[in-house]
Amino acid sequence: MEATLFTVNNVWMMICTALVFLMHLGFSFLEIGLTRQKNTINILFKNVFIISIGLVLYTLVGFNLMYPDSFIGGVIPDYFFDLFGLNLPENGLSADYADGGYTYWTDFLFQAMFAATAATIVSGAVAERMKLGAFMIFTFIYVGLIYPIVGSWQWGGGWLSTLGNVVNEAGEVVSEAGFYDFAGSTLVHSVGGWAALVAVWLLGARIGKFKKDGSIGVIPGHNMPFATAGVFLLWLGWFGFNGGSVLSADPGKTSLVLVTTCIAAASGGLSAFLVSLFKYKQYDLSMFLNGVLGGLVGITAGADVMSVTDSIIIGFIAGALIVLGVALIDKMKLDDPVGAIAVHLICGVWGTLAVGIFGELAGWKQFGYQAIGVFSVSVFCLISAYAIIKTLKSTQGIRVSKEEEQDGLDIHEHGMDAYPDFRLNQH
Amino acid sequence: MEATLFTVNNVWMMICTALVFLMHLGFSFLEIGLTRQKNTINILFKNVFIISIGLVLYTLVGFNLMYPDSFIGGVIPDYFFDLFGLNLPENGLSADYADGGYTYWTDFLFQAMFAATAATIVSGAVAERMKLGAFMIFTFIYVGLIYPIVGSWQWGGGWLSTLGNVVNEAGEVVSEAGFYDFAGSTLVHSVGGWAALVAVWLLGARIGKFKKDGSIGVIPGHNMPFATAGVFLLWLGWFGFNGGSVLSADPGKTSLVLVTTCIAAASGGLSAFLVSLFKYKQYDLSMFLNGVLGGLVGITAGADVMSVTDSIIIGFIAGALIVLGVALIDKMKLDDPVGAIAVHLICGVWGTLAVGIFGELAGWKQFGYQAIGVFSVSVFCLISAYAIIKTLKSTQGIRVSKEEEQDGLDIHEHGMDAYPDFRLNQH
Amino acid sequence: MEATLFTVNNVWMMICTALVFLMHLGFSFLEIGLTRQKNTINILFKNVFIISIGLVLYTLVGFNLMYPDSFIGGVIPDYFFDLFGLNLPENGLSADYADGGYTYWTDFLFQAMFAATAATIVSGAVAERMKLGAFMIFTFIYVGLIYPIVGSWQWGGGWLSTLGNVVNEAGEVVSEAGFYDFAGSTLVHSVGGWAALVAVWLLGARIGKFKKDGSIGVIPGHNMPFATAGVFLLWLGWFGFNGGSVLSADPGKTSLVLVTTCIAAASGGLSAFLVSLFKYKQYDLSMFLNGVLGGLVGITAGADVMSVTDSIIIGFIAGALIVLGVALIDKMKLDDPVGAIAVHLICGVWGTLAVGIFGELAGWKQFGYQAIGVFSVSVFCLISAYAIIKTLKSTQGIRVSKEEEQDGLDIHEHGMDAYPDFRLNQH
Repeated sequence: MEATLFTVNNVWMMICTALVFLMHLGFSFLEIGLTRQKNTINILFKNVFIISIGLVLYTLVGFNLMYPDSFIGGVIPDYFFDLFGLNLPENGLSADYADGGYTYWTDFLFQAMFAATAATIVSGAVAERMKLGAFMIFTFIYVGLIYPIVGSWQWGGGWLSTLGNVVNEAGEVVSEAGFYDFAGSTLVHSVGGWAALVAVWLLGARIGKFKKDGSIGVIPGHNMPFATAGVFLLWLGWFGFNGGSVLSADPGKTSLVLVTTCIAAASGGLSAFLVSLFKYKQYDLSMFLNGVLGGLVGITAGADVMSVTDSIIIGFIAGALIVLGVALIDKMKLDDPVGAIAVHLICGVWGTLAVGIFGELAGWKQFGYQAIGVFSVSVFCLISAYAIIKTLKSTQGIRVSKEEEQDGLDIHEHGMDAYPDFRLNQH
Repeated sequence: MEATLFTVNNVWMMICTALVFLMHLGFSFLEIGLTRQKNTINILFKNVFIISIGLVLYTLVGFNLMYPDSFIGGVIPDYFFDLFGLNLPENGLSADYADGGYTYWTDFLFQAMFAATAATIVSGAVAERMKLGAFMIFTFIYVGLIYPIVGSWQWGGGWLSTLGNVVNEAGEVVSEAGFYDFAGSTLVHSVGGWAALVAVWLLGARIGKFKKDGSIGVIPGHNMPFATAGVFLLWLGWFGFNGGSVLSADPGKTSLVLVTTCIAAASGGLSAFLVSLFKYKQYDLSMFLNGVLGGLVGITAGADVMSVTDSIIIGFIAGALIVLGVALIDKMKLDDPVGAIAVHLICGVWGTLAVGIFGELAGWKQFGYQAIGVFSVSVFCLISAYAIIKTLKSTQGIRVSKEEEQDGLDIHEHGMDAYPDFRLNQH
Repeated sequence: MEATLFTVNNVWMMICTALVFLMHLGFSFLEIGLTRQKNTINILFKNVFIISIGLVLYTLVGFNLMYPDSFIGGVIPDYFFDLFGLNLPENGLSADYADGGYTYWTDFLFQAMFAATAATIVSGAVAERMKLGAFMIFTFIYVGLIYPIVGSWQWGGGWLSTLGNVVNEAGEVVSEAGFYDFAGSTLVHSVGGWAALVAVWLLGARIGKFKKDGSIGVIPGHNMPFATAGVFLLWLGWFGFNGGSVLSADPGKTSLVLVTTCIAAASGGLSAFLVSLFKYKQYDLSMFLNGVLGGLVGITAGADVMSVTDSIIIGFIAGALIVLGVALIDKMKLDDPVGAIAVHLICGVWGTLAVGIFGELAGWKQFGYQAIGVFSVSVFCLISAYAIIKTLKSTQGIRVSKEEEQDGLDIHEHGMDAYPDFRLNQH
């Protein structure tokens, strides 16, 4: 590859890396915006911790684990037993590396920014009641081990990515096919979503969410401007999340991906707004915002293989799934303060399956691969998350005391108040 | 064109697209910051709606309408009667398209991000008293039809852009000249500004703004950090708004544009601060902020043809116009809560005319073309906006009830409070 | 150089310029977040003023002063006596300029965004008690003169950069060596930090900070989400601050710099969190945030010559220095509301010296050059800052009245309240 094109590719990938980094501010804003002020410091602390520990862990373990040379038993990346941090390959800064799409360092940093996302998703779902220490240990294991192992199955060239390969008698691959997940509807979003589901179930609902008379308490977020800013920043970050997943600056592919991403986001927002208007007779800002996110998660698996029309439809269905999903989760007596399960799990599954229904890859075979991907990741994540959180629950405990929950985690865990100058309403 | 240069150009244009997208967060922050907390949800909702519907409408109608193959009667783009959404041309992803400046998809998305801006400008001016449904219908028509038609006159190769062309006897164009509006002082900002003027006039002032004794009530914004953040984000977004309007990554042109843009912004802010200090004896943050925006709008029409000194002067005059404009609008008993008319209309007109006074194109002839552009756009926008808003007023109504205005639109239209955890002052 | 590579380089540098610009929003958020609401308008005003006047001054004076043709007496850049604003050189827009790394305009704008930073650092340290007018005069002189002169010593090719050059008998340079400060641990951060130290000392502590009984009052910030957002934005901005300091888009160098920058930030945050947890038994968000900033400042001097391991260590030590530094500054009865001295001065010095200890340049000789750089800059900045601020103190005064301090600067200097709709606690 020509050196200048290599430089362009790398510039684009560095910008995408920066945009994905910024998503962590987006997640922070969204999460504090949709929860109560008394837990704000705790949520901010978690989010700054997640990106920091995520980067360090991905340096020490994750990157090598996710992109191994080979697999043990087909599923365990071999670096599992051979950890030693980053190791710049000889050609790592030349156009030979990764087809000239980026340098080894950009490769690492782009992937590292993704890694922390899985834990961030869980953070929102367990907000306002999970012990900080337990969450930190969970993050350590989930980001350091579980996320990279699942990722290796597909992006590391593992079994999911070769699921449908046809091999001839000589053992040569004559046609390639397999699970497809462009930027991580399953590998990132549902990996976080499944853990969120387990965590919410094991933790139980916040005090006041599900009342004795069977009614569902409304616990409004404390700062809708932050929530809205969070969604705008996440949408912006998705320019990098999906745009960077092209893994080069290829003009046709990157620009198509930005178009499908933005259109699905817009369509998802409008859909959630319309469905919730129809269902609840109200212009619901939270639903609009989560609809945008649902559209973004939904398009993520196939952003590079969809048409404009496909994107509108995928987004529109994702938006509707948000409204119905939030209602369903409430009905199941699961308490997810920010709607993380609807956004990242339900729309993550939807987006993954949609690759088999719409776009260039559509077809029954592909739908089958997609379903296998969804299923296998769900099993692995559910078991892992259950093992980690259940162990934490039965040892040090995962839930703060009733008193701490009522007073807020900020005062008890951090000895601080997010807004000491303002008088507060009690709720 | 060389494939690699095409890739660079497209990367730059995608980044500029992302930056213009981010302006919608900037507008949201600015608008909620300068208004009262009780209408915050409503404003956020409008802004998320605008970008979402704007993208979808531009997909379905706007893009083709704005860049037509030909015009009917010289003014109506022919796609008006031939709508069918996006249609990737054969060369749309190759360096043949648009002189290699970007792909068809980037072209679309960059322009789509601009389209929603016009409605956003109106949103600020009508804040705190306009019915949400009426605003949404207005947005639908204004973004979907009016903005692209006006845009087609200039950027779509229409009559304004060829106003001063000299044609020889054989019908060949021997010299090109015409209206000049680099990035939209007129085509974007004043298109929004004229509608804002009409809307503010038809809506009437907020309760408490103009008192019976003739004095003018001060209705301060509720969150100056958000307003300031909004201006920083808008300034940042203008790197893309103006920088991307070069329509390629040409090093000399793009970097000059960023310099003139930033210097005009700085100069506009300092000017508004000094003039307001002189006039009101106070260090007025709102004026400083609107001065920055005035400088940005003012340089937009000629950002690529001005020198550094020109930019300082254009910005400085824009900043002064902000302070005087806000006072004038108050005197005319028009109530514009965020100063949108001063910023986008007055400075938009100023910036457009300035192209005939300063810089490479300066001259009486050019000044004439600029004046014709300003005038024709004003007529078309005033009539269109009047027709739309007057119709809405005499059918479903455009203004919320007195009770709703006093309680705030958040509770009545959205059943939500932006900050439920905080005790509030009444005003 | 090839024209296309020149275009890529320039695109990267323009993006970095935009990111450094955004740091001014980051600083604004951080500073208001860590101080009381009653001084919020004042802080926002200062920050918008700093970037605006900074850009204009750098246009008129700073750029030429910092990159002079020659030096008078080896230390005073000759443009000191020959000011006339920007002057596009003949090759300023071609690939001949600056080794094809960027155009003259990008060069100017990137450096201009850096210039304002020094004053911003001081702004945080003097918050809540310094007169606005005095601060503005200080900014004018410090950004307009002191910063560019110090900068010229190194980045303008001055004596610090050639400190260790070996010259043969014929007067030819046979080996180059000297002070090394990649992106400004000393030239930007400690330049601000030394002035902050002087200002804090001459101003005295805020009322209530150091009590008569010897105890230290805790004056919590009023909005931790803003403080956190500020740190995220600063971290993002550092992608441009350090990434752009490569002065081209060289893939290997830029991507290494982003990796070392992010890892040092993460490591600094984790370290400050752990040290403060050990020392104060609390999960302290402020410390985590300042630890991230400390890591960023610490890596800045050597971001392009460090390994991943070096970055982790440099960041980790920086984070620890933050916790210890904040305690030390308190003990010295200096009142620095946002921790600017610990972040920018202490970690700036640390990062500069670290270039002699870690990485490619490590060695006793280099350590000596680094120490000379730190020492000479400290002397010049301490004397300059003292002269400016002491003069202001003995003429117009630098501290607001006791009444104004207690009521807050917002009402007295600006006649505005940052959040008029919210009821406030007194503290």
